[in-house]
Amino acid sequence: MGVVSMTETGPVVERGPKQDRSRVTRQRLLEAAVACLAEHGWAGSTVSVVAERAGVSRGAAQHHFRTREDLFTAAVEYVAEERSLALRALFPEGTADRRAVVAAVVDLFTGPLFRAALHLWVAASNEEQLRSRVTELEARVGRETHRIAVDLLRADETVPGVRETVQGLLDMARGLGLANLLTDDTGRRDKVVAQWAALLDEKLG
Amino acid sequence: MGVVSMTETGPVVERGPKQDRSRVTRQRLLEAAVACLAEHGWAGSTVSVVAERAGVSRGAAQHHFRTREDLFTAAVEYVAEERSLALRALFPEGTADRRAVVAAVVDLFTGPLFRAALHLWVAASNEEQLRSRVTELEARVGRETHRIAVDLLRADETVPGVRETVQGLLDMARGLGLANLLTDDTGRRDKVVAQWAALLDEKLG
Repeated sequence: MGVVSMTETGPVVERGPKQDRSRVTRQRLLEAAVACLAEHGWAGSTVSVVAERAGVSRGAAQHHFRTREDLFTAAVEYVAEERSLALRALFPEGTADRRAVVAAVVDLFTGPLFRAALHLWVAASNEEQLRSRVTELEARVGRETHRIAVDLLRADETVPGVRETVQGLLDMARGLGLANLLTDDTGRRDKVVAQWAALLDEKLG
Repeated sequence: MGVVSMTETGPVVERGPKQDRSRVTRQRLLEAAVACLAEHGWAGSTVSVVAERAGVSRGAAQHHFRTREDLFTAAVEYVAEERSLALRALFPEGTADRRAVVAAVVDLFTGPLFRAALHLWVAASNEEQLRSRVTELEARVGRETHRIAVDLLRADETVPGVRETVQGLLDMARGLGLANLLTDDTGRRDKVVAQWAALLDEKLG
């Protein structure tokens, strides 16, 4: 997924200082865009607000992202990839502890990235020009998250029901993220995660 | 929960035709408000738009609901109660079929009510005047949904882990609702629900 921005986050080879600066500016805009969306929602998130937050001129921002839709979809995709890489990096050698994996997967859905993505999804449900792009983005990010969960949980998807078991876990994680939107749901969430991680561990054998 | 609107939906005893008309107007406003919120989101949902949709004058709407916040929180609560009553009515004598119960509970989260509630929750995360009211509303509706799920699933919450198992199911249902926001997710959802209903049935014994 996301070949373009994977390159952006990869090692910089044979690039001049000008390209480096441009890459850093782009990255700052993407991170500011996610923070802005998480805090102010879609209605309060414009290219100008993000440019100011990133300390970049409006012209420079528009050089990188032609439209508001370009900026915010790229931002959610970029941060989702960063979070996916970080999740894999938590278990570099794999782990026998499936409960730790479940907890880490659920964590993906409780921070600013989930909040930003939620604002984007909900805005897309009423705005035609966003809808198809966000639908595509959701599919890509969803596939990647599923793949990571399968790998880290050592789930054998050739066994009937295993694919759906992992999908249900990710749906639960998404619902837990939503439950955390207005209040700090950490206490309840930890107990639910412990219980369902045990169920999953039993089932995956 | 919701004593006021429970009375509204109960049998009309010793009421004059004027009170009946007022009750019918209120009900039409509440139903129109949920439909409007589901279709147009919070930004596109005003008292005027709802009044027009319900075929009621703006003055009459404001007689029933002083503020936009009053109208939309009352609407989501009213329709949530209607849906809860309908869910209980599906299994008037209880049922041995837990999979049917899980499917019916998940259905609560895939229609216009969930969509409307989602718009309200997300708006509340950025708007101070909505936040505390929606937080309270979410807690009340959440408790009632949990109670119904426990009853219909014949779940014994004195057994350790059972409470969290049911909560996790409701979190999964919420996440499945979110996954259905931009695309019709019915095919995938049915398989996930079948798998987790079987797991739950095993676990609850």
